[in-house]
Amino acid sequence: MQRRYLIFISAFVMVFSSVLVAQSPAVKKYNSLAVRIAKEALGSNNSFDMLEELCANIGNRISGSPQATKAILWAKTKMEEFGFENVHLEPVMVPHWVRGPVEEAYLLLPSGQRERLKIAALGGSIATPPEGITAEVIEVKSFDELQKLGGKAKGKIVFFNRPMDRTLFQTFAAYGGAVDQRGHGAVMAARVGGVAALVRSMTTRIDDSPHTGAMGYVDTVNKVPSAAISTRGAEYLSKILSQGIAVRIQLKLSAQTLPDVESANVVGELRGTEKPNEVIIMGGHLDSWDIGYGAQDDGAGCIQSLEALRLLKKLGLKPKRTIRAVMFMNEENGGRGGTAYAAKDRPGEKHIAAIESDAGGFSPRGFGIGDTLTYTKVAPWGPLLRSFGADQITLGGGGSDISPLGQKGVPMI
Amino acid sequence: MQRRYLIFISAFVMVFSSVLVAQSPAVKKYNSLAVRIAKEALGSNNSFDMLEELCANIGNRISGSPQATKAILWAKTKMEEFGFENVHLEPVMVPHWVRGPVEEAYLLLPSGQRERLKIAALGGSIATPPEGITAEVIEVKSFDELQKLGGKAKGKIVFFNRPMDRTLFQTFAAYGGAVDQRGHGAVMAARVGGVAALVRSMTTRIDDSPHTGAMGYVDTVNKVPSAAISTRGAEYLSKILSQGIAVRIQLKLSAQTLPDVESANVVGELRGTEKPNEVIIMGGHLDSWDIGYGAQDDGAGCIQSLEALRLLKKLGLKPKRTIRAVMFMNEENGGRGGTAYAAKDRPGEKHIAAIESDAGGFSPRGFGIGDTLTYTKVAPWGPLLRSFGADQITLGGGGSDISPLGQKGVPMI
Repeated sequence: MQRRYLIFISAFVMVFSSVLVAQSPAVKKYNSLAVRIAKEALGSNNSFDMLEELCANIGNRISGSPQATKAILWAKTKMEEFGFENVHLEPVMVPHWVRGPVEEAYLLLPSGQRERLKIAALGGSIATPPEGITAEVIEVKSFDELQKLGGKAKGKIVFFNRPMDRTLFQTFAAYGGAVDQRGHGAVMAARVGGVAALVRSMTTRIDDSPHTGAMGYVDTVNKVPSAAISTRGAEYLSKILSQGIAVRIQLKLSAQTLPDVESANVVGELRGTEKPNEVIIMGGHLDSWDIGYGAQDDGAGCIQSLEALRLLKKLGLKPKRTIRAVMFMNEENGGRGGTAYAAKDRPGEKHIAAIESDAGGFSPRGFGIGDTLTYTKVAPWGPLLRSFGADQITLGGGGSDISPLGQKGVPMI
Repeated sequence: MQRRYLIFISAFVMVFSSVLVAQSPAVKKYNSLAVRIAKEALGSNNSFDMLEELCANIGNRISGSPQATKAILWAKTKMEEFGFENVHLEPVMVPHWVRGPVEEAYLLLPSGQRERLKIAALGGSIATPPEGITAEVIEVKSFDELQKLGGKAKGKIVFFNRPMDRTLFQTFAAYGGAVDQRGHGAVMAARVGGVAALVRSMTTRIDDSPHTGAMGYVDTVNKVPSAAISTRGAEYLSKILSQGIAVRIQLKLSAQTLPDVESANVVGELRGTEKPNEVIIMGGHLDSWDIGYGAQDDGAGCIQSLEALRLLKKLGLKPKRTIRAVMFMNEENGGRGGTAYAAKDRPGEKHIAAIESDAGGFSPRGFGIGDTLTYTKVAPWGPLLRSFGADQITLGGGGSDISPLGQKGVPMI
């Protein structure tokens, strides 16, 4: 039995090596260079220093905020310091939503007890009246369930409490299966006469931090305020409701949407030596939600793009095609930066790939490729990334900031 | 070109699938079960709740401390609550080192300036005299360099400042390449007449946190105190020294080693239904350094072992062989628990594998197997772990708590 496995393993290793290494000319040609780039990257503290400057020194940076402007100037300065070419801002009008000073919710129990709940207004929400909204709470797990309640939700605060499915190893799939509640909860609540939407935070963790995120309204439906409740708060509230106790919540929010303001994407590049008009863009989004630091979402993606170009420059490597770093503005609540980048007329230029990093920094494991044809080209390069554990090349990719380019046929990574 | 790659990829996928899936009977047989176990694990918050109880409620738990005793009782209670069999403590005498209340270092510049440095006594260090040790600092990067200084280090505080090589993707290799300074720095400093050892913290991060860890003395050499300095502090100190400035440091430590005390390993198991005397142990170490929470080192390893058995129990799965969870005591500064476990007479029992998790929790990526024979058996099971991304089965493994078993020929994972 052991011998059989030994033979199997040997055969497997041989097949694996011969297929991936010997048959991929790119791996033979570039492997030592790939290792050199990786060592330079790992050996420098530059990425972390930049991330600290962006997230700890500048801080959160929602579109239209003074910090967003600071972040734009910071990124431009970095690009200039590193010697990128053609560094410039590309103006874009962005939404200007502000949370305001008031954000509180109290659980009012029939006993007269009053307990504070940890909440955060969802991005885009309107305010409550200054005295707040006080109403009974009704819990649902889905829009279907809400529809079936008929008139029962009228006058109530609708509590959307379907958890992200944490049994899914791919947490983005779990996010995708729950985020409709955050995006459309307020509209769905208002349609059945609800007075506000309270949404379980989008996270698989059970903790006390409410997570904000984007929500939207439609013109044909009455606007009601919408806030996230922490997962622990949601579990607690659900437990009380399951006991048949009639619970009211007093909700006060001061959020408002001000007129659009001018902001910008930040762009810099290394010009290609042979085909400068063929462009590969690499980007992340510079804006972040107004609570927290935005280190993973998406400071890391911005830093990765800046650092990739800096490393090439540092090592004296000149790409044949132009590689362009793009710091997109307003991914979180509008996606205006991504749309504007793709819409801009760039005579003579052809984008041959758009790479976006917006899935968190963590330990990079590889690349997801948006289309089969690109996948077949890129997959054999996987072994070039093996020395630092990022060699998982998978089919399926894209990102919100590059999707407007994707719609124009640019391969997305 | 594209077509060629498409064919290549298809061929590769076919070969890969056929070799790994079709030819490994274990994968066919157990895949749906593996997915079921993984889903149960991902779906429950039990691991995080346990980790919080151990690390946040009990806290740090160095051998001999009251918290170590609390952790032992906590682990035993958990095992009993989960219905493990044969739950018991296995007594072991452990070292009892205490940091004491005083721990400070000041940089004394020729200008008269006095700056506080962030330091932490290394585990096992003796104290300084109450008034501290004040002496000039001399920096070295290696023991060789120290030897070559001849008499120059006499009367001085020796500053060991060789960084972990952060260009190594395998950070344990980087750790291994620097940790001699922490373990033996005090002895090497004393040999050349040094009065104390100051060691750059073992981390690739540049930050202000000094990292403690184990150090040792030998009977034939004078004992001098030893402390870790934060990496940022080390960089700063090195910069000043590189300018040729004569720098003194005042170091005060109150650490001491008290007499050994009785402690215990915590053991519980699921008895095998067919071969109960063939035992697989899974373990982590319950003790942790006396600063910080010990969540990664090694709360996570303990929780993984407890949770693995709990999951089997919860799903009604009965192993053919006995699977035993062992919470080792005193990995950090003595390894007495691992030694005692292996030394204990267990009539009739045969250990067929020892699994240790002590490389941090993070996202599990797979298993390292200590010997080739075991590797050839286990490697084909990799695909069973693919649904949760832990399918990297690599050759090379072991761990400090299971190495005494390994020396007796038990396969280590």
